[in-house]
Amino acid sequence: MPLNKLLRDGDNEDLAEERRKATFDTDEMAAIIWEGKERVRRRREITKKVNEYTELHDPYCQAFMTRHEEVENAARKITKMFSLIDKLGVNPTNAADMAHLTSEVIGLYGHPLALHAVMFIPSLQAQCADDQMHWLKKAMSRQIIGTYAQTELGHGTNLRKLETTATHDANTQEFVLHSPTRTAMKWWPGNLGKSANHAVVVACLIIDGKNYGPHNFIVPLRDPETHMPLKGITVGDIGPKMATGPVDNGFLSFDHYRIPRTNMLMKHAKVTPEGKYIPPAHAKVGYSAMVHVRSHMISDQAKFLAQALTTAIRYSAIRRQGEIQPGDGEVKILEYQTQQYRLLPQLARAYAFSFTGRAVRDLYLRVQKDVAKGKVDEMAELHYITSGLKAVVTHLTGEGISQARMSCGGHGYSKASNMPDLYGIAVADCTYEGENMVMLQQLARYLMRAAGEAEKGRALGRLVNYLVEPSDIHSSIDRQLDYDYKAHLKAFDKAAKLQVMKAYERMRALKAQGLSEEDAWNANAVELNRAARVHTRQYIAHQFYEQVSSVTDGRCREVPRDLLHLHLNYEILDMAYYLLEDGFLSGQQMDYMKEDMYRLLAKLRPNAVSLVDSWDISDHELRSVLGRRDGHVYENLYKWAQESELNRTQVLPTFEKYLKPMMMEAHAQSKL
Amino acid sequence: MPLNKLLRDGDNEDLAEERRKATFDTDEMAAIIWEGKERVRRRREITKKVNEYTELHDPYCQAFMTRHEEVENAARKITKMFSLIDKLGVNPTNAADMAHLTSEVIGLYGHPLALHAVMFIPSLQAQCADDQMHWLKKAMSRQIIGTYAQTELGHGTNLRKLETTATHDANTQEFVLHSPTRTAMKWWPGNLGKSANHAVVVACLIIDGKNYGPHNFIVPLRDPETHMPLKGITVGDIGPKMATGPVDNGFLSFDHYRIPRTNMLMKHAKVTPEGKYIPPAHAKVGYSAMVHVRSHMISDQAKFLAQALTTAIRYSAIRRQGEIQPGDGEVKILEYQTQQYRLLPQLARAYAFSFTGRAVRDLYLRVQKDVAKGKVDEMAELHYITSGLKAVVTHLTGEGISQARMSCGGHGYSKASNMPDLYGIAVADCTYEGENMVMLQQLARYLMRAAGEAEKGRALGRLVNYLVEPSDIHSSIDRQLDYDYKAHLKAFDKAAKLQVMKAYERMRALKAQGLSEEDAWNANAVELNRAARVHTRQYIAHQFYEQVSSVTDGRCREVPRDLLHLHLNYEILDMAYYLLEDGFLSGQQMDYMKEDMYRLLAKLRPNAVSLVDSWDISDHELRSVLGRRDGHVYENLYKWAQESELNRTQVLPTFEKYLKPMMMEAHAQSKL
Repeated sequence: MPLNKLLRDGDNEDLAEERRKATFDTDEMAAIIWEGKERVRRRREITKKVNEYTELHDPYCQAFMTRHEEVENAARKITKMFSLIDKLGVNPTNAADMAHLTSEVIGLYGHPLALHAVMFIPSLQAQCADDQMHWLKKAMSRQIIGTYAQTELGHGTNLRKLETTATHDANTQEFVLHSPTRTAMKWWPGNLGKSANHAVVVACLIIDGKNYGPHNFIVPLRDPETHMPLKGITVGDIGPKMATGPVDNGFLSFDHYRIPRTNMLMKHAKVTPEGKYIPPAHAKVGYSAMVHVRSHMISDQAKFLAQALTTAIRYSAIRRQGEIQPGDGEVKILEYQTQQYRLLPQLARAYAFSFTGRAVRDLYLRVQKDVAKGKVDEMAELHYITSGLKAVVTHLTGEGISQARMSCGGHGYSKASNMPDLYGIAVADCTYEGENMVMLQQLARYLMRAAGEAEKGRALGRLVNYLVEPSDIHSSIDRQLDYDYKAHLKAFDKAAKLQVMKAYERMRALKAQGLSEEDAWNANAVELNRAARVHTRQYIAHQFYEQVSSVTDGRCREVPRDLLHLHLNYEILDMAYYLLEDGFLSGQQMDYMKEDMYRLLAKLRPNAVSLVDSWDISDHELRSVLGRRDGHVYENLYKWAQESELNRTQVLPTFEKYLKPMMMEAHAQSKL
Repeated sequence: MPLNKLLRDGDNEDLAEERRKATFDTDEMAAIIWEGKERVRRRREITKKVNEYTELHDPYCQAFMTRHEEVENAARKITKMFSLIDKLGVNPTNAADMAHLTSEVIGLYGHPLALHAVMFIPSLQAQCADDQMHWLKKAMSRQIIGTYAQTELGHGTNLRKLETTATHDANTQEFVLHSPTRTAMKWWPGNLGKSANHAVVVACLIIDGKNYGPHNFIVPLRDPETHMPLKGITVGDIGPKMATGPVDNGFLSFDHYRIPRTNMLMKHAKVTPEGKYIPPAHAKVGYSAMVHVRSHMISDQAKFLAQALTTAIRYSAIRRQGEIQPGDGEVKILEYQTQQYRLLPQLARAYAFSFTGRAVRDLYLRVQKDVAKGKVDEMAELHYITSGLKAVVTHLTGEGISQARMSCGGHGYSKASNMPDLYGIAVADCTYEGENMVMLQQLARYLMRAAGEAEKGRALGRLVNYLVEPSDIHSSIDRQLDYDYKAHLKAFDKAAKLQVMKAYERMRALKAQGLSEEDAWNANAVELNRAARVHTRQYIAHQFYEQVSSVTDGRCREVPRDLLHLHLNYEILDMAYYLLEDGFLSGQQMDYMKEDMYRLLAKLRPNAVSLVDSWDISDHELRSVLGRRDGHVYENLYKWAQESELNRTQVLPTFEKYLKPMMMEAHAQSKL
């Protein structure tokens, strides 16, 4: 029995050869990635069910659909999925099962009920008062379809400047929703355009002329029978985007639109029937939800990257191009060091991000328990580190997918690879849920506070302990292999400390030049972002190290260690600037690390396919002709292309309409 | 009269304010970018004509079209453009006028005659023997539509392994074209799928069982009357790609398809009626065409980047978000140092790439004259540097567009910004016309030869002179401003020299360990690519310096110098690794350069809008709601969105089909 469990008779021989070389059990590695054998078993059970129910499949590849067809296809599949949920054996309250089921049925592209599940229901859960739970009940059972409308045409990041108003009318006990300007129009909310008939709307609460800032309201948008927009509501689709064609991101404006007072979500802040405003008990109740969403994003990004690498590495094992030794025949492109260098450090990152996402989620769960007991200090710290992680991981994942796509040459550019959409969907995360530059600035604020404390010899928190720990003047990294990686981790600590303190001191210098706190901050923003990035990469390195150290399975120990080792070398070389500048690492030490890195590329290469196979992403979920498990790429590229929308007829109308007249006229002219 | 000539009454005031701050004349800068006032005048004349002829416009934004509609729309416009060519006042043989006209009418997205002009006609020009000129005549007058079919499903880079065969049949004086395997299928040629009825096909010439390698044949593919594929021909569209929807990239296979012997293009190699093969007089006739195409790519990429920055910088001047000084009101996002850092070094690159593209083109023209006189040595050198430039410039441009897109926040993700397509089209160049990794390896071969010569004290050529020039041990860069930039250029030379020699010495060390030349090369490939990259960036820095030094116009001198200065600092900091490692630059010197860079960001910021305005890209050509000259973004985003394909009805069929039944059923269930 081979150690790679994805090997089957009849597979492309080049790919089979790779799988026979596995030095670890891919099922055991899958259990490490997905946190337990039981989860792997459930994933596969769900995949099998989805394969059986052909009603849940696409009639043909989504890439060949018009946007209308995409929207309709996604609506068909998602409603079908819910109606079959019992037969599929999935409990809708099991988040992990639902996530995998949706991924199998829908893929990455979104659907008309996406925001309903991800934003509408959680908003109601978090903000409905006891007597408002009927809204939640209706949402949970899908009697209504909702979304969450916060972002406006003119404002995304700076929520305090949202322009939509909800003005209390004491006479009628109503709120009057209004969009006073063009930029006040709600813009971007998913499924707002055509699908939702309700929304949780964020609007500035105004009572007796006083603005109490953004609050949440539940708002009916469309007639339940006809789905026509209600009077006073203008709503529609904002048009196509870089990816996610099936999602109807929407616009929404209000013309003095009235809702009952009781449609304000009143779990926290309240407005009494008399029009009296009662503020929430705790000011910062929002942190928890943001942290939760962002910690999920880390794991999602890891999976995006793993998907791209599954395609790129499998394809690199079946694509033969060029010879290394003349006359020895063309080699698999995975033999080229440049290809290994493009893919394997990215693979290490996919593992690193996955382990980090898990660590942050566990931390979140622990901190949440503390918060329930009234201990809130760690929540802020967690908020800052998830901000940094969100920015760094989404950025590096985008770059990694882009490299993976290009490593597939021309075929990676075809939608048959699924790489273009994967890229388009993954990079959206760089922008939403907090634009990356803003996220880094948030973490930087925490780091500057920490640097101030460190100067006084005090540690602000566990995450910035390295600022007060004594650090060596020179690294102890040398030519000998250092299998506990402590010297590497120290280099990360050192790099973070150097840049955090550098940004801190530059801040002080700018203020000494007479700049105000705010102007100095802006004049220092690039250095501050650097500090936030290095700090975050230090955090990822430590998490990766911790998680790999905890792997006890004998056969699965060595390969993750090699991945970790590759990651540490690759990242330190990438951040060499900070360490060389200070003299902590010498050029010679960098050379040792480089040699080590090249050695690790060669060492990991025979397990490359097995390391992506371990992510256990099914063909149905991957939706990539290049990344098929069986490696039969070329014949299936041809099959795929034959279904292209342009191949439905041999001759397009364009010929008779435009091309033939042009040629005939030219021909006639030539006879003159 | 303001110095920025794009200022108009009624413009968005935030943008107008920027334009009033210009310290140089944008028309004069445009003349520098486009090489003369006359070219700027012609560009504007053509733009104006295209604006007048509404038949050349899109009925609505291409983003809302199905792929069928895109193809048809492009065919309509391009045939109309040719039939109006006299009225438009454009001479079809004027390459610069035609390029601008096509860009205005078509944009970046391609059309059914794209390959006809770019590949088919040039192939015939280069390879038709005197008695084959009737093909060229038919092509030039558009009596036939052609493309160039080289790449196969299984082979792109390694042309020697192309599988399509053209077997000579002495009895009939014909060639039999055949695709012996699935991977032999031609795959990717633009316009092959549905538009072309002829192709120049690359196939291995076989005479009496002997394979003479790839040769070119002119091949009819479709019936001129019906456009149906001819017997023995299988042809179709390969399906949608990352971008370029209107282009029907195609597949093509031959089943013992016969063409006359005279359809082999015989300007160079020949096959006589008796079946005797006559080889070409010169073996490497291909260099020249490749160099020509790649030097064009540099200029194209510069323009792609300038387009992205035109959108991003104008938008950054009208988008207000967040306050710097609390209470002072929201600021233009261009005020943030992070935003300046994202955009201004990229703007410097757009100028650098544009100047470099021009320098390489001029060098090409000079070298071509030498070649005509029998002096061929510089052509090889030019071939290597264009290989490196192609790889480095396409990669950096992709990254730059991506940053520009993300700097627009959410709206950059909308197709209204045109950023997604711009990115998709620009990055295609990373892969075609020589995959980037392969390109770098080609340049590295030259550099290793140069390093070998340098070791012996000899310079191989002008481009690698720095290898033999004595170089300082430490950089003279210091806190004082150094306006002749010589110290900066020396740092580039030094970085290139260090890495080239490092790769060379590592090569020797690997061979000393017993590796064959080929295996050592592969084990050193990453270091070799690094050498090629640093060398290329050194080349760009020098070209930028040369061209800026040649600007004599007084008012237009300072700003390009500041851009150059920013570029030099930014790039050296980005390549700091090489220089810190060796001790050539100290950490303190790096800090000086950083401070200088931050100072330059602030200094260039007031001219940022004028620096993109100078590229003189019309609204019609830019096709970006965010990048409109007048800055009226928000109201036009709303106008744009209203035309979205999903807004043609208030209620989509999806509601009655899927969403309403789901909600009704849930409602009924809730009553039980």
